[in-house]
Amino acid sequence: MNFINIDRKSRVSLSKQLYMYYKESVLNGNLKSNDKLPSTRELSKDLNIARNVVLDCYEQLIAEGYIYTKSGSGTYICEGVKFQQNKTKTETHFNKNECSIEKISFRTGIPDLDHIPIIKWAKIYKESILNIDVTQMDYQNSFGSYELRSQLSGYLERVRGVCTSPDHILITNGAAQAFSLLCQLVEEHEYALVENPISYGIIHTLKSNQVAMRPIRVDEYGMVTSELPKQSPKLIFTTPSHQFPTGVVLPINRRIEMIKYAQKHETYIVEDDYDSEFRFDGGPIPSMQYLDPQKVIYVGTFSKTLMPALRIGYMVLPDQLLHEIENIKYVADLHSPNFEQIALAKFIEIGLFDRHINKMRRLYLKKRNHLIQCLEKEFGERVTITGAQAGMHFVAAFKDVTFDEALMSKIGENNIEIIAMSKHYISDHSTSQIDNALIFGYGNTKTEQMEKGVRLLASIVLANSEDSE
Amino acid sequence: MNFINIDRKSRVSLSKQLYMYYKESVLNGNLKSNDKLPSTRELSKDLNIARNVVLDCYEQLIAEGYIYTKSGSGTYICEGVKFQQNKTKTETHFNKNECSIEKISFRTGIPDLDHIPIIKWAKIYKESILNIDVTQMDYQNSFGSYELRSQLSGYLERVRGVCTSPDHILITNGAAQAFSLLCQLVEEHEYALVENPISYGIIHTLKSNQVAMRPIRVDEYGMVTSELPKQSPKLIFTTPSHQFPTGVVLPINRRIEMIKYAQKHETYIVEDDYDSEFRFDGGPIPSMQYLDPQKVIYVGTFSKTLMPALRIGYMVLPDQLLHEIENIKYVADLHSPNFEQIALAKFIEIGLFDRHINKMRRLYLKKRNHLIQCLEKEFGERVTITGAQAGMHFVAAFKDVTFDEALMSKIGENNIEIIAMSKHYISDHSTSQIDNALIFGYGNTKTEQMEKGVRLLASIVLANSEDSE
Repeated sequence: MNFINIDRKSRVSLSKQLYMYYKESVLNGNLKSNDKLPSTRELSKDLNIARNVVLDCYEQLIAEGYIYTKSGSGTYICEGVKFQQNKTKTETHFNKNECSIEKISFRTGIPDLDHIPIIKWAKIYKESILNIDVTQMDYQNSFGSYELRSQLSGYLERVRGVCTSPDHILITNGAAQAFSLLCQLVEEHEYALVENPISYGIIHTLKSNQVAMRPIRVDEYGMVTSELPKQSPKLIFTTPSHQFPTGVVLPINRRIEMIKYAQKHETYIVEDDYDSEFRFDGGPIPSMQYLDPQKVIYVGTFSKTLMPALRIGYMVLPDQLLHEIENIKYVADLHSPNFEQIALAKFIEIGLFDRHINKMRRLYLKKRNHLIQCLEKEFGERVTITGAQAGMHFVAAFKDVTFDEALMSKIGENNIEIIAMSKHYISDHSTSQIDNALIFGYGNTKTEQMEKGVRLLASIVLANSEDSE
Repeated sequence: MNFINIDRKSRVSLSKQLYMYYKESVLNGNLKSNDKLPSTRELSKDLNIARNVVLDCYEQLIAEGYIYTKSGSGTYICEGVKFQQNKTKTETHFNKNECSIEKISFRTGIPDLDHIPIIKWAKIYKESILNIDVTQMDYQNSFGSYELRSQLSGYLERVRGVCTSPDHILITNGAAQAFSLLCQLVEEHEYALVENPISYGIIHTLKSNQVAMRPIRVDEYGMVTSELPKQSPKLIFTTPSHQFPTGVVLPINRRIEMIKYAQKHETYIVEDDYDSEFRFDGGPIPSMQYLDPQKVIYVGTFSKTLMPALRIGYMVLPDQLLHEIENIKYVADLHSPNFEQIALAKFIEIGLFDRHINKMRRLYLKKRNHLIQCLEKEFGERVTITGAQAGMHFVAAFKDVTFDEALMSKIGENNIEIIAMSKHYISDHSTSQIDNALIFGYGNTKTEQMEKGVRLLASIVLANSEDSE
């Protein structure tokens, strides 16, 4: 007579209950190798359940290798199936997005999230997806959606002076992935030349990808191209249209010098053009890429012009790199998600993207002016602002202040999120760094917060400089 | 008197036309370094245009470094600004998705694209996105959407017996990215042990990431765990619930042996669980991960259960790897796109995902049976089918046939897309490979096409074996 505790009121099926019972008994050793199980007929009678229920359970146990049948003899427990399950309680971590209500943030590179055309976006996504062909739900080629690349090609030519075609564009998960993929072009004995300072995000990406880096100095006009080194770098990372973080525009003669250098050496220039659509005085500065599309890899992103959460960026590639980068992208993740690319193509096609850019440019100009006013009001002649002609950030240098770790953590403790200029230097570079400046991002900072934040900052900074006098 | 050809009817602004004229003249050398430009007053009079138009143009040229002003003296061309633009015509490549109307495809791992609930998907995306908080449009943490991880954690526990929490899940761009990220765990002197055969996608990923590989044999029960090597691998790649491509289920005693091996050595098991939701006889085989969540990295994807174009996959990670993999994902692309993750969370939450799986399981069962019928009709006793209990593919072995390159290309020329079993072996493995089998994927093959395809295949294969007799 067999007895197994079965709960007829449970939502778990009888067959599953039986299966769980046997599985546990086998794993914990209560049932031992080569022990014989009751016949299905016997068990169904003892437990007063349908024989099919027992059959289902036995079949599952056989499929998973817990039991086996010997024909004409019966069903037995397999060998080597006793095991103490590792029930180490897994730690729980709090990964939800941090609550940042209290913080006043001058983070750089964040667009004004209150002005994202999310209703239009959601509508266009739905409409576009309802109209796609089934082949669009399948795996796609590694370059990305042809529709998006067509639209983008037109846009980049029109607005950024980029010389391209849909076939030269590869869609990535944001510019961050573009940089990470490009790192794979650099062999162990090669190196990348990097503007110093540059965004610490790029420094982190190169470092994490084990790319050897050398810095090249940036002055008030951008990269000091007269200091381009004799030994050819594989890649040159530059931000010519809006140097990050200094905000300056690289003049045409230095651009030409860099291009000629790349032509002479086996070097590609990586032009990071992250936010130069937002230029306040005059038109946008044309890309460097148009001077020589075969020596420049142009990298752009929709994270600043539309929104970061989309993770859509792109590279415009020279012919010679098309195949290699396609393979690198394929290995990384086959291709980027397709549907939002299709929606974005539509968004550009019907003119919503251009309209959004124009609207945001006016908004950022207002915000920039307001933040400058706040700074001048609180700091007067002690503050000097540079690189404010474009984008969503500028540099503010403060007289007789050093933004060292102690001061920066004091600022952080007061719930002001801001980054010191010095953070964006390649750390092992021994030449002079600017240490009296902060980078003010204002894209997603509300005007009320600007006043409050700058006032608070003034009280911390001025108190600090009195302390040290 | 200055003369510049200006088209007053053009859509290009007068200022932009003037700017283009000067820019071209400077670059091509018609205007030389230190040549003096007319004053804005003079030029506006000569061309009969507003002085502001000239001012705008000069300002843009100054901003870009083409010209400079000497106060009290005038405006001059800068030095070093002559340059022959590289107008090498960039090649055009045809990257649009290939037209596959004529092909009969037995590709593996493609779900039935005609049955994707695309209308529901589009609706849920729109509804979800209209309701999100602005913080969801910002950069997110590298693990991915908390909503999706919560839903997924419940689903995996319920359906796959995975032992997890939202905090142990990291969202990737499909399983392909998961494998690529995991490669970075393997140092130069270490190696990965790989089931042989396994999907050639995994082989390609490991090879491209310079991971040293060693094969471990697969027999009719899956990995031959008694042959686990003395030298510890860093990772073991395995498909225990539905071995790819053989389709067999690894029995519990071998699972336990592999887990004990991993516990003894400094090894993690990568459990690739790509399609075992679709099991036709009995319930799905529970994951291996639940035996020891601290030694198994469980990898899954929505490419088979929902659709490939979404590029949503995931890893369930042991505590010890959380931080390292988070950093690797951050460097790769910061995080995966957020909105479709939010939509997918909703899709699971309201029960649509489970319903879809159940519907598709019934559909695939029908398709499988039909394809087996077709094969048996055409090949009779010459065909043996294995690994058909689950998923969207099975193995068909043919008596006295060798699927060598010549035969495979003959099949391809007849517009049949199918892959030989031998393709999925690690190539430098000298031990016996099965060379008389094809892998039939039937997920996205229409029933009419099956008949036609199998008949065509029979005519090629049978003619070929007669040739060689």
